[in-house]
Amino acid sequence: MLSKSTIAIGTHNTMKNLEDWFIIEPGPQDIYEVDTPVPSIDLEIVERNLVRWQARCQESGLRNRPHIKTHKLVPLARYQLELGACGLTVQKLGEAEVMCSAGISNLLLTFNIVGRPKLARLVDLARKTDIAVVADSDQVIYGLAEAGLAARRPLDVFVECDTGGKRNGVQSAAHALELAQLLDRTPGVRYAGLMTFPAPGARRHMGEFLAEAKCLLEGSGLETRSISSGGTPDMWSDEGLEHVTEYRAGTYIFNDRSLVERGVCSQSDCAVDIVSTVVSRPTADRIVMDAGSKSLTSDLHDLSSGYGVIRGSDASLYALSEEHGLLHVRKLPNPPMIGDILRIIPNHVCPVINLFDRVLLTRGQKLIGYTRVDARGAVT
Amino acid sequence: MLSKSTIAIGTHNTMKNLEDWFIIEPGPQDIYEVDTPVPSIDLEIVERNLVRWQARCQESGLRNRPHIKTHKLVPLARYQLELGACGLTVQKLGEAEVMCSAGISNLLLTFNIVGRPKLARLVDLARKTDIAVVADSDQVIYGLAEAGLAARRPLDVFVECDTGGKRNGVQSAAHALELAQLLDRTPGVRYAGLMTFPAPGARRHMGEFLAEAKCLLEGSGLETRSISSGGTPDMWSDEGLEHVTEYRAGTYIFNDRSLVERGVCSQSDCAVDIVSTVVSRPTADRIVMDAGSKSLTSDLHDLSSGYGVIRGSDASLYALSEEHGLLHVRKLPNPPMIGDILRIIPNHVCPVINLFDRVLLTRGQKLIGYTRVDARGAVT
Repeated sequence: MLSKSTIAIGTHNTMKNLEDWFIIEPGPQDIYEVDTPVPSIDLEIVERNLVRWQARCQESGLRNRPHIKTHKLVPLARYQLELGACGLTVQKLGEAEVMCSAGISNLLLTFNIVGRPKLARLVDLARKTDIAVVADSDQVIYGLAEAGLAARRPLDVFVECDTGGKRNGVQSAAHALELAQLLDRTPGVRYAGLMTFPAPGARRHMGEFLAEAKCLLEGSGLETRSISSGGTPDMWSDEGLEHVTEYRAGTYIFNDRSLVERGVCSQSDCAVDIVSTVVSRPTADRIVMDAGSKSLTSDLHDLSSGYGVIRGSDASLYALSEEHGLLHVRKLPNPPMIGDILRIIPNHVCPVINLFDRVLLTRGQKLIGYTRVDARGAVT
Repeated sequence: MLSKSTIAIGTHNTMKNLEDWFIIEPGPQDIYEVDTPVPSIDLEIVERNLVRWQARCQESGLRNRPHIKTHKLVPLARYQLELGACGLTVQKLGEAEVMCSAGISNLLLTFNIVGRPKLARLVDLARKTDIAVVADSDQVIYGLAEAGLAARRPLDVFVECDTGGKRNGVQSAAHALELAQLLDRTPGVRYAGLMTFPAPGARRHMGEFLAEAKCLLEGSGLETRSISSGGTPDMWSDEGLEHVTEYRAGTYIFNDRSLVERGVCSQSDCAVDIVSTVVSRPTADRIVMDAGSKSLTSDLHDLSSGYGVIRGSDASLYALSEEHGLLHVRKLPNPPMIGDILRIIPNHVCPVINLFDRVLLTRGQKLIGYTRVDARGAVT
């Protein structure tokens, strides 16, 4: 594993400590004084995860454009840029506005902007910062063109391609070419390149789709400046990346149980725990934690594996209600007592951070303090 | 169905309109100017749901103690009290603090308070307001007793009974008696009664448990002032309620798809929609909405029924990612276009409101404006 001290990434060797990037609200020194449930973020693991991926991008000639939807924290976005990221990815205008207000530029918004209220906000953003967007239909392009004209600067637009993710995106290379040509001839917008979010485990199809689209686009004389792919689960695989110039990963900053289960990382690479208290032991085998679906979400890794796992074990919560999390004592190495604090690695960390107004920062066992989640709830 | 005008509930006949209870941030008049996704709350349906249940409680001699975990809105809590609720239920200290700051008293906190930070907050609350709590173990009672002594007023404590809900609670009537006796002899706490959250559809067992416990408690000379049950799914059933004096329902204020699927209500009784925009139609049969798990949660009603339903149809979202919601066009009565707005009735409304800093208020088709969700994120 690469460590911060063994590779030269950005200017990090002269950088201040990661904790110094945050506005910190002082908190307790003792974990038993922490008011639970709350997510704790281990900055040591965050640094390691970020540095390792930045090094990999540099080695392989990929531009790194991290997705801030996972952490939603301005200081972590700044740190990613300082390490060498070429810019940031956001999923919603609200996230872009938070980053822009913090003085961060070079954003790619990977979500179709549709409707008058959103196009007005995009005009405001385009006047203030460098923001590129995506489209997968004529209708979306017409709206973006109006916004670009209103902002008096053409918007860079990526054509979103459905390369197996079965979400948004054009279904064929020929349709990608059509939209690129529409962008090229429409005032207010510029064709910037291709963007896709591939299906996990199915990168070969993505590679074939992008190769065909690139070939068609070159044949038509259009310049494809950037081809952007993404996703944490397959980030270490080279498959299908032949034509990809830029990579968007979000979850890699923290990792989570679903990535451990997929074999992408280990628990020691997971930077976020939900710190939770045992509040009841109603039967010999049942304990109840104070973290439920309002702290962990109901996101599942698979239907049988429960809701998060206790760090240092393979004991998962077998049921949640909104504020209760249920565990079998027999699954734990030591039977916990009422009042004990357990650390839960969430199944899916991205929607968990989005539940909390503040999070606890740590470095290993040391508690640093609380900080505000800047873009929490920015779903519009 | 009972309407507001046909029964005398509290002082509501002379009450101001429900909209006048809110601090309103002006919003658009046209639904196509609404920035989506956002929950909309129809106050007409809210009034009907609240008035109907309050009437039922009064007819049947039950005290109504609504749970604010669903709405998290101070104005709706005040309105429930004005209609005749005896007090409110909260699940976490943070919710109690929000209600207390708004001048609302008579709270029942139905969650074990454990650990120094929480006991300190409970002391503060007990000094300011009437708050009763629960316990299901000696350890919890010892902590509460210290808090009661520190607050210089004894805390009213309900013994939580597990009558089939398989969450917290003592497992037998004999154990309930033991804890009631411990409360009775311990300075700083007072035995207040029994509290349970029964398993849906299994009220008979609850009735038997409570009858046995009440009999044991009477035999020991302890006065059981209140027996508190709860839950929206079975709220209209009398089964097992023989000894219950107080009822805690939360979801009934809004209702949701899970209650429609259980046959408890119809879509026209559901007060909350997620207003969402069609952002893509990548294939003939797939449309993509701008509401995903960060707006709807991943809560399922059952494994095959998807993530919320489009109002006026039985079309459910078949997949979510964090910001995308996927629908089959063939399930909808009219094929929607990009830019169309659809209303999604969520599977489970309680964690949905908890995702949003503000919600849109409506009365039927009329848009009233936005209001702040006072206790959003109050999970500690």
